[in-house]
Amino acid sequence: MKSYRKELWFEVPGRRGFVNITPQVESALRESGVREGLCLVNAMHITASVFINDDESGLHHDYDVWLEKLAPHEPVAGYRHNRTGEDNADAHMKRQVMGREVVVAITDGKLDFGPWEQIFYGEFDGGRRKRALIKIIGA
Amino acid sequence: MKSYRKELWFEVPGRRGFVNITPQVESALRESGVREGLCLVNAMHITASVFINDDESGLHHDYDVWLEKLAPHEPVAGYRHNRTGEDNADAHMKRQVMGREVVVAITDGKLDFGPWEQIFYGEFDGGRRKRALIKIIGA
Amino acid sequence: MKSYRKELWFEVPGRRGFVNITPQVESALRESGVREGLCLVNAMHITASVFINDDESGLHHDYDVWLEKLAPHEPVAGYRHNRTGEDNADAHMKRQVMGREVVVAITDGKLDFGPWEQIFYGEFDGGRRKRALIKIIGA
Repeated sequence: MKSYRKELWFEVPGRRGFVNITPQVESALRESGVREGLCLVNAMHITASVFINDDESGLHHDYDVWLEKLAPHEPVAGYRHNRTGEDNADAHMKRQVMGREVVVAITDGKLDFGPWEQIFYGEFDGGRRKRALIKIIGA
Repeated sequence: MKSYRKELWFEVPGRRGFVNITPQVESALRESGVREGLCLVNAMHITASVFINDDESGLHHDYDVWLEKLAPHEPVAGYRHNRTGEDNADAHMKRQVMGREVVVAITDGKLDFGPWEQIFYGEFDGGRRKRALIKIIGA
Repeated sequence: MKSYRKELWFEVPGRRGFVNITPQVESALRESGVREGLCLVNAMHITASVFINDDESGLHHDYDVWLEKLAPHEPVAGYRHNRTGEDNADAHMKRQVMGREVVVAITDGKLDFGPWEQIFYGEFDGGRRKRALIKIIGA
């Protein structure tokens, strides 16, 4: 069994943003030499997500509006977590809706994707350096 | 390490529906010959989900009502994504709540499930042919 | 390829609660002898979650309030599932928001975590004995 590990670093300006990381995951897969297996990609921070969806800017706008409706940033004092001095409780909620991780099949040395699947890093508490992890296992 | 891949095809009539695919995943597992490992099942489309829950029609009705409340289909013009000519922005939201994929343990040649776990394909933008992927790795 | 399986049992008093199971998963990993691979941890019940987030009591309070707002327990008769004699339809919704499972990378014999990642069992229909599953594969 082969295994491969790589970290991706981000510094998203502003509070929230989505970054298409599919090319970086494809590079890691080539570096791994794995032909058949599984590829885990996860946020290493608990106020960020890795998810698979469409690379369409209107949809990303809709996600941002929708997540803000489900788990509003304001009022900051409305969350007990923020009494610790943080202001990011909403980011912990948004990350649960969008998910921590994706697991992607590897077939014949490629990410085994449907027609529109793209991998995103979703930032909900940006303005600082944060990481995602790629772990590949297989043969 | 053994690996096995299979696609499942669906054409759910109407906009939304849930399909129990546990028997098809069990068949794929038998075909794989894997005794110990992991089984990934994911939607290959970004307006559909694969998830694990109960096969109870009242619950499926409740999920449908609840998802429509969290991310309503109407008004279609309320989503920027729909300016692309689509009317399925809500389906991209619903899929994030229900999830893209499940990973199931394989033990002694079987899906290692608790008492009520069943695997579903969840369609949120139906009326056309779409796919889920089964990828099994192990020994 | 090595594989390892372990069940964790819980009896959360009251309806809802979060239990940090990171130490138990770390023990299972040591017992497995796996150095490089993947670790799946999933709820075996469909009214419970396994998720990764912060071990901060204010945040857990916020999650509880937020999930109750997204999928209220009352009125029990508001869910068709509860006509089966159950009163836990809301728990099936909450579990979908928080997720069934996590997959964690194993690197150099350890859970490959960011700075604050901790694994939780999330109970939404407690007061009885329920299980989570740990499945580890790798080399």
